[in-house]
Amino acid sequence: MNTSELTNKFYDLQSRLSAYRHAVDLIYYDGATTAPKASAENRAHALGILSEESYKLSTGDEMLTLLDDLAKVRDELSEKDRRCLELAEKEINEMKKIPLDEYVAYQELIVAAEDTWHSAKENDDFASFLPYLEKIFAAKKRFAELCAPDKKPYDYWLGQFEDGLTTEKCDAFFETLKARLVPLIESIGKAAQNDDSCLHGDFSDEKQLAFSHKLMEIMGIDRNRCILGTTEHPFTTSIGSHKDVRITTNFKNDNFASSMFSVIHEGGHALYDMGSCDDLAYTYLDGGVSMGIHESQSRFYENLIGRSEAFINYVFPVLCEAFPEEMSGHTADEVYKAINLVTPSLIRTEADEVTYCLHVMIRYELERAVMEDRLEAKDLSTEWKRLYKEYLGVDVPNDRMGVLQDSHWSGGMIGYFPSYALGSAYGAHILKKMREDIDVDACISKGDFTPINEWNRKMIWRHGCMMKSDELLESVLGESFDPVHYTDYLEEKYKKIYNLV
Amino acid sequence: MNTSELTNKFYDLQSRLSAYRHAVDLIYYDGATTAPKASAENRAHALGILSEESYKLSTGDEMLTLLDDLAKVRDELSEKDRRCLELAEKEINEMKKIPLDEYVAYQELIVAAEDTWHSAKENDDFASFLPYLEKIFAAKKRFAELCAPDKKPYDYWLGQFEDGLTTEKCDAFFETLKARLVPLIESIGKAAQNDDSCLHGDFSDEKQLAFSHKLMEIMGIDRNRCILGTTEHPFTTSIGSHKDVRITTNFKNDNFASSMFSVIHEGGHALYDMGSCDDLAYTYLDGGVSMGIHESQSRFYENLIGRSEAFINYVFPVLCEAFPEEMSGHTADEVYKAINLVTPSLIRTEADEVTYCLHVMIRYELERAVMEDRLEAKDLSTEWKRLYKEYLGVDVPNDRMGVLQDSHWSGGMIGYFPSYALGSAYGAHILKKMREDIDVDACISKGDFTPINEWNRKMIWRHGCMMKSDELLESVLGESFDPVHYTDYLEEKYKKIYNLV
Repeated sequence: MNTSELTNKFYDLQSRLSAYRHAVDLIYYDGATTAPKASAENRAHALGILSEESYKLSTGDEMLTLLDDLAKVRDELSEKDRRCLELAEKEINEMKKIPLDEYVAYQELIVAAEDTWHSAKENDDFASFLPYLEKIFAAKKRFAELCAPDKKPYDYWLGQFEDGLTTEKCDAFFETLKARLVPLIESIGKAAQNDDSCLHGDFSDEKQLAFSHKLMEIMGIDRNRCILGTTEHPFTTSIGSHKDVRITTNFKNDNFASSMFSVIHEGGHALYDMGSCDDLAYTYLDGGVSMGIHESQSRFYENLIGRSEAFINYVFPVLCEAFPEEMSGHTADEVYKAINLVTPSLIRTEADEVTYCLHVMIRYELERAVMEDRLEAKDLSTEWKRLYKEYLGVDVPNDRMGVLQDSHWSGGMIGYFPSYALGSAYGAHILKKMREDIDVDACISKGDFTPINEWNRKMIWRHGCMMKSDELLESVLGESFDPVHYTDYLEEKYKKIYNLV
Repeated sequence: MNTSELTNKFYDLQSRLSAYRHAVDLIYYDGATTAPKASAENRAHALGILSEESYKLSTGDEMLTLLDDLAKVRDELSEKDRRCLELAEKEINEMKKIPLDEYVAYQELIVAAEDTWHSAKENDDFASFLPYLEKIFAAKKRFAELCAPDKKPYDYWLGQFEDGLTTEKCDAFFETLKARLVPLIESIGKAAQNDDSCLHGDFSDEKQLAFSHKLMEIMGIDRNRCILGTTEHPFTTSIGSHKDVRITTNFKNDNFASSMFSVIHEGGHALYDMGSCDDLAYTYLDGGVSMGIHESQSRFYENLIGRSEAFINYVFPVLCEAFPEEMSGHTADEVYKAINLVTPSLIRTEADEVTYCLHVMIRYELERAVMEDRLEAKDLSTEWKRLYKEYLGVDVPNDRMGVLQDSHWSGGMIGYFPSYALGSAYGAHILKKMREDIDVDACISKGDFTPINEWNRKMIWRHGCMMKSDELLESVLGESFDPVHYTDYLEEKYKKIYNLV
């Protein structure tokens, strides 16, 4: 085959793999949103087989020969083809080190684990979830040893979510944050506290749903390609390609802000996924490049935009229209201060921007300790409580609001959490850069997301996975990433809110 | 391989095929209920590839060799294994006669056709749907010629929905019905007409949804394995196996009866699908054996039970609880007469039992004429209107309430419609048989579906596809099926309602 025939065949194989991804992604989405309660076993059956077929297609002779042949003509390939090849080589070389039966058993384990996590959380029953959690950690250690025997297992998984991330880099990053955030939290703790009663009331699912749709419209999300569902834990997924993207939220009837910021957060993920160039669909290049960059977008919209004074001023009349009784007598300034109330709390997804990273650090320390065999999974509940007391000064009353709160571990996403903190910090640096081109506050004040979205599209979204995450970030920033812009942003914003000098 | 190894491998292949079916079924269900509006192309991409992979698995050397080897030891096989082999041989021998590219193109056509049908119906725009309809009829003729060159194409497709069904048998069956039903309709037309105002009012989606859940509970449907969705056209599907079954309905806000009887109808399909023996899952034997038997169950619950005096008496208090304002001042007897109002109408799914079969006959005549090249697809709209005038005396005001009303043709289900009439008639004969064992009216009066469901489970559901449909029917009835029980039932019921002698 000549080079052109080889690349055609390569894209055909990628396209076939994307159809399996489509099926698997949809089965997961359906399982979380729609499927009958007792269907997990049936789902695991299909997922096991489809994963197996996909594994065989990825690691079969046809693909391996093709990768070898393409490697021989690497210099003749276009930039796009070469990047596809690089990503395929990385993924497939690792995948083929995992025996097929272990790979399939892991996919089935995840379905059962997610199913059990749901009921365990509902019933505050960590013990029922523990056997799955133990198996997941064991599988993660085993796969890391198989795929990258020269790396520490936890470093390997960190690197799966963010190119080149290691515990060393994480430690340094978190230390930088702590050095500035811990004193800030202390100062805020001594300041006069704001009131958040305007967030509370009785907010029906129907009203919150209508408000969510309005928020997605304001954000400029193409509703013909992106739907909203409801799940226990909010998430974003694309189905097969960036042409079908789905976000979910969870309504708390006593506080509208919980779902509001989930919708904006997941909406940011969705915009990023949906923004891939159309010709990247059904290839290794489609969608976001890393979870760090992904969280830079979600946390950008959630916090840098969504929790800004300009946005709250803009959205306040919309809020009043959505919840006329509850908002009656309140002001935009009250809402602004309430959604930016800094207070140690129990739930990560509802935490304020300043204490948020402490929630992430706790998870980082815990999963790292298990991966490094310094902690057993069975002790995670106790350790969780101890660290929440130590870092945030709060007593965790139960596992539902503690170790069972997040869905990540049940989905096998060990090593994901640091992406939230990194992404938040990336976002602040990106915003600084964006401000050189756009009057961001002026846009937000008008509810006009177009210039902001177009900037992100041009600089980040459309590239999909064409660049590595660190390359992409540097190309956006025009300089090396520096977390100081994040801590500067937090200090400036919150000193103003809390009248600190 | 010895026989036991051969059968193990055979069940493994069936299991793998079921995973593809799981994916395909879910992609369709999701497309009809949930997926973003503009995602049809993305869905077609995945469906095309998954169909191709499934086709290759079905018709590949591994399967063909296995079927040959199993055929050599047919006499050594258990009854179950032998029946699986028989069904696999039938399906695969036909499938392999269709070239792969045509097979895949057809799957993609169906996704596009269903997507276009939705908007065509919404916009009353038959012209936009016509190109798809033409291609579907062309594909159906072509596939019939490839798979069964010795049969008339329409006969081939009739036989796909009901073992051994032909136009000859359909004609005879419909003539029998007409001979009794046309005079009955005429007599009813001359009788004093009943009033159906108690069905009308303002019924919100929320209230109808709650009532639907209640109906499913009354029917004894296991809600842990069966969910309810809403779609333009109600349907039932299983996802991968009988362990995950889904029904849908469509709420009309001015008439609760439309969705009520859709839910009971689809609930009947669901009970049948869910009733397969567990050890039939992931084999050729899982689920209902034919559409005729399927409709015997759905139309049984919808009409023979759901529209019976005993059931309406039982369900009336439930209705009053669901719609207190609208039902206030009405009686169970009014509701019973209203839901059994015999009147020529436009919409098949809302037709009364007596005129229902005329709706089916119209579709039968039309699709048969196109399949026999006596009518062009472009003339279906006009012919539809002409036949509705001739058979039912009604003027069809638009295509939305005419040729575009049903989803079947857009889904490629040519030859399906006669199953509705056949199933209705099977149901009446089955009920007669059931009454020998159970006091059906006494059960219904108490809202106790258990004895009825258990009888159906024992006689029909649990067998899945173990028997051919005609064998199954005869085993249930203990005699040959006779449509006279259906016409007897209709005459007796409606003469009483309309006080005819």
